[in-house]
Amino acid sequence: MSLLVVGSVAFDDLETPAGRRDDVLGGSASYFSLAASRLHPVQVVAVVGEDFGPAQERVFQGRDIDLSGLVRKPGRSFHWKGQYGQDLNEATTLDTQLNVFADFHPELPASYREASCLFLGNIDPLLQLDVVRQMAVRPRWIALDTMNFWINGARPALLDVLQKVDILLVNETEARALTGERNLLKIYERIQLLGPRILVVKRGEYGVALFTPQGHFLAPAFPLREVVDPTGAGDTFAGGFMGYLAATANTDLETLKRATLMGTVLASFTVEQFGTGGLQALTDNALHGRLGALHDLIHVAAR
Amino acid sequence: MSLLVVGSVAFDDLETPAGRRDDVLGGSASYFSLAASRLHPVQVVAVVGEDFGPAQERVFQGRDIDLSGLVRKPGRSFHWKGQYGQDLNEATTLDTQLNVFADFHPELPASYREASCLFLGNIDPLLQLDVVRQMAVRPRWIALDTMNFWINGARPALLDVLQKVDILLVNETEARALTGERNLLKIYERIQLLGPRILVVKRGEYGVALFTPQGHFLAPAFPLREVVDPTGAGDTFAGGFMGYLAATANTDLETLKRATLMGTVLASFTVEQFGTGGLQALTDNALHGRLGALHDLIHVAAR
Repeated sequence: MSLLVVGSVAFDDLETPAGRRDDVLGGSASYFSLAASRLHPVQVVAVVGEDFGPAQERVFQGRDIDLSGLVRKPGRSFHWKGQYGQDLNEATTLDTQLNVFADFHPELPASYREASCLFLGNIDPLLQLDVVRQMAVRPRWIALDTMNFWINGARPALLDVLQKVDILLVNETEARALTGERNLLKIYERIQLLGPRILVVKRGEYGVALFTPQGHFLAPAFPLREVVDPTGAGDTFAGGFMGYLAATANTDLETLKRATLMGTVLASFTVEQFGTGGLQALTDNALHGRLGALHDLIHVAAR
Repeated sequence: MSLLVVGSVAFDDLETPAGRRDDVLGGSASYFSLAASRLHPVQVVAVVGEDFGPAQERVFQGRDIDLSGLVRKPGRSFHWKGQYGQDLNEATTLDTQLNVFADFHPELPASYREASCLFLGNIDPLLQLDVVRQMAVRPRWIALDTMNFWINGARPALLDVLQKVDILLVNETEARALTGERNLLKIYERIQLLGPRILVVKRGEYGVALFTPQGHFLAPAFPLREVVDPTGAGDTFAGGFMGYLAATANTDLETLKRATLMGTVLASFTVEQFGTGGLQALTDNALHGRLGALHDLIHVAAR
């Protein structure tokens, strides 16, 4: 199976209770591909400016990440400036500079158009729809992330693309805004009517709720002593989740549960450092150690 | 093992998004004993006024609940009036009338003084301490619940009684107020220095985090379509948790995990109705059905 992500590659200025960093490599496609590529090769579609140089390229090198769909344009890359308070669950956006992202029209290289697993990162739903239309064959699984900006500002286009989506990954606030419901079971019923058969609700430090027609799964976040920077946790989760599905070529409930735990553990490494530092430094030993620890944290022995 | 609870038996006026009920039987000892008695006999120490009549007595009859420590005093029972908004996680107290509870001095009947399992419900820590002192033998397990009112207003007495406690059950806000830490792992380290070796953090709709020297356990709340009234969820959880420990006469990690799931499921029935209605109507079939469903919701098959 081939796995394709369309999203952003960005520079972030980050302020959290743990400190401050400027011009940190970020963006949904960066976190997603760094996480997913530990499990399965990834193809990336995104746009960057002239500020994306050798230092940034090196982050993706030596990994199963195909950057032939990464377009370089004159100008600066997308910049985001965000701040987190003691409650690390919500970021305050201080500044957004779209730059080259402003007229990004993802164009899929021919080699990408038969990907069987497609992740539509959080971008304009019109662009997400356009990507789906460029596929030569309908991917086996299409997953989508979005945010309140599009839910409230571009609902018709979002509803259009959702009809073509199998797996929706959103946080709790977004799930509520999209459906008008507060209760997760009711939210899932509404989401199914909109298209996706699988719903993943990301709940920050409280973990993830997975809803599928075969059954549901409730997973905690991996407990950490220090969270340095929550940026990218959701995209890292999505990368681990989709990478696991692509690697196993399966979406039965057991696989989806394991994919949830894989995404959860990868996200725990992301939030321990600023930007993609945690994912870059991650060893297989550390990954498998923490996966085992998470299994233990939720495991109840059969009687 | 014998199981003893000291707490309140009260009348509550409740207002939630689902409706309004006045003079509903409540109080920590009521919820606790109704939950625990499904698993193990319970002895109750509490005080009521003249408004506690045959209708209220009937709620406890026909169950393994010993009310010989329930003292009747002239006057009215403790009354609490509370309101919940759409966020059912926190109640707003509109009115508290201590009534006969104002000069409650729990006095343990001789038959109670050798209980091996003691639950100190959320009352003045001086009274909790007094109860511990009345025990003829040191109970095998002492568990305690408290709230911000005592954490902020009676800290020295609370710290005194905590030194004698094995298991602390509090919600996330209380755990933070008590320790000055936000992070759960750091909170647990601080709590251990205060006395308790086991910490249960109740997180409302996000479930329960259990910390023990042998390992930790993170359990979700049971997902419900409707939550009618969250009052008593914490005391119901404590009843199920302690009832399970008393019934198994064990506090190894596996037993504590199962106790956590039992408390979680019992609490899910409490919040589906006003007051103790959900616990009163609960059948063994419904209880075991939901326990099985909760196991499925967290279970990941061994490879």
